[in-house]
Amino acid sequence: MTTITTANLLADGQLLRAAERLRPDVDPAEVAARAAWSVLTEPGDGVAGALVAAFGAQGALDQSLSDATLRAPLEAVGAKAMSEAVQRWRPRADSRAVAGALHDAEAVGARILLPDDPEWPTGLDDLGPHAPLMLWVRGTREALLAQETVSIVGARASTGYGEGIAAELAGDLATTGVSIVSGGAYGIDGAAHRAALGVGGTTVAFLAGGVDRSYPAGHQQLFERIRARGAVVSEVPCGAAPTKWRFLQRNRLIAGAGLATVVVEAGHRSGTLNTAGHAAALGRPLGAVPGPVTSAASAGCHRLLREFDAICVTSAAEVRELWSDAAPVQGLTPAPDPDLVRLMDALSARSPRHVPELARRSGLSLERVRSLLGMLDLEGGVARRETGWIRLNRSAEGENRRRV
Amino acid sequence: MTTITTANLLADGQLLRAAERLRPDVDPAEVAARAAWSVLTEPGDGVAGALVAAFGAQGALDQSLSDATLRAPLEAVGAKAMSEAVQRWRPRADSRAVAGALHDAEAVGARILLPDDPEWPTGLDDLGPHAPLMLWVRGTREALLAQETVSIVGARASTGYGEGIAAELAGDLATTGVSIVSGGAYGIDGAAHRAALGVGGTTVAFLAGGVDRSYPAGHQQLFERIRARGAVVSEVPCGAAPTKWRFLQRNRLIAGAGLATVVVEAGHRSGTLNTAGHAAALGRPLGAVPGPVTSAASAGCHRLLREFDAICVTSAAEVRELWSDAAPVQGLTPAPDPDLVRLMDALSARSPRHVPELARRSGLSLERVRSLLGMLDLEGGVARRETGWIRLNRSAEGENRRRV
Repeated sequence: MTTITTANLLADGQLLRAAERLRPDVDPAEVAARAAWSVLTEPGDGVAGALVAAFGAQGALDQSLSDATLRAPLEAVGAKAMSEAVQRWRPRADSRAVAGALHDAEAVGARILLPDDPEWPTGLDDLGPHAPLMLWVRGTREALLAQETVSIVGARASTGYGEGIAAELAGDLATTGVSIVSGGAYGIDGAAHRAALGVGGTTVAFLAGGVDRSYPAGHQQLFERIRARGAVVSEVPCGAAPTKWRFLQRNRLIAGAGLATVVVEAGHRSGTLNTAGHAAALGRPLGAVPGPVTSAASAGCHRLLREFDAICVTSAAEVRELWSDAAPVQGLTPAPDPDLVRLMDALSARSPRHVPELARRSGLSLERVRSLLGMLDLEGGVARRETGWIRLNRSAEGENRRRV
Repeated sequence: MTTITTANLLADGQLLRAAERLRPDVDPAEVAARAAWSVLTEPGDGVAGALVAAFGAQGALDQSLSDATLRAPLEAVGAKAMSEAVQRWRPRADSRAVAGALHDAEAVGARILLPDDPEWPTGLDDLGPHAPLMLWVRGTREALLAQETVSIVGARASTGYGEGIAAELAGDLATTGVSIVSGGAYGIDGAAHRAALGVGGTTVAFLAGGVDRSYPAGHQQLFERIRARGAVVSEVPCGAAPTKWRFLQRNRLIAGAGLATVVVEAGHRSGTLNTAGHAAALGRPLGAVPGPVTSAASAGCHRLLREFDAICVTSAAEVRELWSDAAPVQGLTPAPDPDLVRLMDALSARSPRHVPELARRSGLSLERVRSLLGMLDLEGGVARRETGWIRLNRSAEGENRRRV
């Protein structure tokens, strides 16, 4: 076992050549160092993020794992956190594991994405020191270049209702060029991906395990279709199992990658609420689709609406408003002219009524009744008969009447 | 036709005796003057409200309708508004109409409620000058004395879903002593009243027309039941038709009478949203029950959630929280100890693993793994075998695992 330092990585010819083949356009030492961090850390390791931000991927490795180097005490990290971090990285500090990760990626045609790449989902940078240090990607080059991206997530234990809504939202949005982001689970995630693919759109699945694994196994074919038209992405190397911790941390990537996150269905304590929590923590707009209050699969969405200021979304247009300028809010009901409402109430379509009777019935003055009748006469709303005024039934008035 | 002044009202012996019979405990001149305002004005007449607040019901009549009195220009009203108001009251200023209103009320057993009465719904006072100047009531004396009152409203064009929820909410709340307030329409209103009556609770129907009329006719029996156990209330005198204007104004009474207003179902442009608007204008908590986004009958509720900051309510307990102290909001998901989650991920129930392997798999230090294993061992979560540590499957862990 050879500990991981830049020098040790550079000393492994096979490792270096694999790094070169994966990213011919980047210094292989940098590719190897980033891959090393992916191997060393569990997702969301803030100490690693702070170190790499301060010293670069290679410098941070040498500060941490070279016995020869004095570890610089970092203000952002602190001596104790630094020491603990090195203790947890050391059991994995074997350069052969890095070589293995690069070879495995090559074997399945995975690419390496680095934070400065044009394809890098810049929304992830908002995660700060908890942002991934690199991503493993299988799919098209265009998949991560969409101008607009929305995360559509929900429970595995979904209903036909929720799957239908997920499909409608994802399909409508993907049709208009919005890229869909979700996880890889059964239920809402799968419905969203399928709908996006179905309309020829772009969809991206963030996985908790390595991109070489199909989890759940029943989604193997779906992942193949996603790779052909979109991308499957992970921050953990090939071979890594989808552990609970990695699911929880994967959720922050889904929340960070989208301009907004929409929860379609979620049980009262669904893991999906964890994604919603990440979106809220990132200040990302959070939408929730309501459902029947009798459906346990919507209980989590209702909690989000009720307790966490999620925005109620019922259509693709409303989802889009989460990140684009909100449409002007209309008043609850168009404000009718009160006097006009009262005069129309007082008029009959059958019994002609004179002005004094209309005044008494409407509670308006004689003068006001005369003036409104003149206006309505011009508009064709009333007609004068020998024995008084009658209302002419217009469809609009019928509408109003049905509304009360 | 004798114009309405206090003197003219007092001169009508029959009118005065009817007032005395209706309210033996109150000066009949005051009862007659309040009834006169109910006859003279359409609901929500702010000028009448301001005048009565300034001069009392009798003084305001004399300021307005006595030819002999110089009308005091009112700062709160203004000369122009005052003049217009008198113009609209004059066509109805016939003291015989007041006598008729009192006799009609007596004939159907309606009572007169005045703003200082213990039964007066004090929430209506928040309407300021637009508050009703009196109420006509048919029903029990206790009906309006409930400590807690909630308004449950919704569309006539309701679905079985909405009616079921309305019934569940109204029934649950009425069981715990909350009085239900609603309108008299088919659909949600009817379902709420029936459920409250069904559990022996109190329910109050605010009508747009006079309390002698059954509108809609199909609710005649329901109104009878409401009168026997609760009350039917209106601010317009017996015989008054339920016009569109009076429906719109009746909605402000429903919104004002409840500690909170809950909309169960409403179309996108439902008249129910008018009630919601009144509740919002009064600063009353506004709840909306979500439903399937595929249901047009829930579209108005979703608008309220989305555009008007209504609170999502799905149960009677959540309705109650609208006016009582809100329950403490829990985090979206209980925060698990990250290191513990990662160690549990690394442990297997079948394959024993030694500490170095557990450290590598979990991304934790050897020291941290040992310390957590010690804790888990005490709790019975792990066991040491000859070839390493195994996880003991506890139901709680199974729960967690299913959730991700």
